[in-house]
Amino acid sequence: MRTRFDEQLEQLHVELITMGALCEEAITLALKSLFDRDRSLVPVVLEKDGEIDRKERDIEALCMRLLLQQQPVARDLRTISSALKMISDMERIGDQAADIVELTDQMHDKQLEMSSSLHIRSMSEEAVKMVIQSVDSFVKADLELAHSVIAYDDVVDNLFSKIRGEIIEQIATDGTNGEVYIDLLMIAKYLERVADHATNIAEWVEYSITGIHGEMDGE
Amino acid sequence: MRTRFDEQLEQLHVELITMGALCEEAITLALKSLFDRDRSLVPVVLEKDGEIDRKERDIEALCMRLLLQQQPVARDLRTISSALKMISDMERIGDQAADIVELTDQMHDKQLEMSSSLHIRSMSEEAVKMVIQSVDSFVKADLELAHSVIAYDDVVDNLFSKIRGEIIEQIATDGTNGEVYIDLLMIAKYLERVADHATNIAEWVEYSITGIHGEMDGE
Repeated sequence: MRTRFDEQLEQLHVELITMGALCEEAITLALKSLFDRDRSLVPVVLEKDGEIDRKERDIEALCMRLLLQQQPVARDLRTISSALKMISDMERIGDQAADIVELTDQMHDKQLEMSSSLHIRSMSEEAVKMVIQSVDSFVKADLELAHSVIAYDDVVDNLFSKIRGEIIEQIATDGTNGEVYIDLLMIAKYLERVADHATNIAEWVEYSITGIHGEMDGE
Repeated sequence: MRTRFDEQLEQLHVELITMGALCEEAITLALKSLFDRDRSLVPVVLEKDGEIDRKERDIEALCMRLLLQQQPVARDLRTISSALKMISDMERIGDQAADIVELTDQMHDKQLEMSSSLHIRSMSEEAVKMVIQSVDSFVKADLELAHSVIAYDDVVDNLFSKIRGEIIEQIATDGTNGEVYIDLLMIAKYLERVADHATNIAEWVEYSITGIHGEMDGE
């Protein structure tokens, strides 16, 4: 027989999946607005970010209720503390998506096109892949997938270094577009952070399954 | 008579003050390493960041114990949930301090000197002031001080825009030092985030005192 506690834990699971899906959408749409030069997506992404913020507070309240009423132990306690951590990282991914559209919103078509001369598109693809896989590793409780997300962070970091070099070169040769190149660099920086948060999510998945948190363990 | 619960709440208060002080030290020393070109401070800051991470986990564990054993309500519950939020922001300030020294560590004296041609020093002073005052507003439960920190965020944001312009100009006229200027821009970006986290801390102070969270309320 399912207890009230089981039901609440199941609800937590569903809410986390919903929040994860919102993050995937927010960051995917933010990058679509950049690459397709589609400014109509700007308010859509900002609205998604607001929805993600509200979802964070709902899940927080649910976790607090579970902690207060059920006094869980061992694995259940770990699930709830991981959930509390994971939603912070998800919420930040929403913030970065909003940061990205706020920058793209100010750019003209010509300026948005400049992103194609840089490695920003491949960096975007990799960062979004990490977000999707980190959420997936949670949904399926897939430890192997979580580990592969964690290992993948270096790929995105290297792409950031590459873009950094490309942008310095562009500004040095074409100073008139400096502002736009710096905005594009900031977008790359936001993507680097998105990848960091996906890595964190994967680390919380690892912790909730194994009780071991890679980073804590490595210290 | 003081109950066990009062004692634990008092312990939470003391631990938060200690963690706040560690953040102040970390960011102050990180900027000292930049402006005094003192590389011996790099490992000191990294060690502080590790200490901040451990402190976050201790406080988290304490909050969980309080929630589980004491089932607090109303203002006490608000204190504990604010504490859980505040330590995330403090932990990020530690991360940004580490990010800053990791960049300064790679620079030569000559390159570190370049920071003096930009508004980075004044931005640093303002950001550090915000951290100190946000922690102070918590220690003294000073709502007015918390509000002034929140209002001050714009000053730091404007300094970031100014530095951004300065750096674009520098790279356009002196492309050979592009890498260093971009690193300095990243330092400015980290300082902008430090100010954001100080603002968040002040908002949690506001919430724990009044039950109203400015940002949530504004939505």
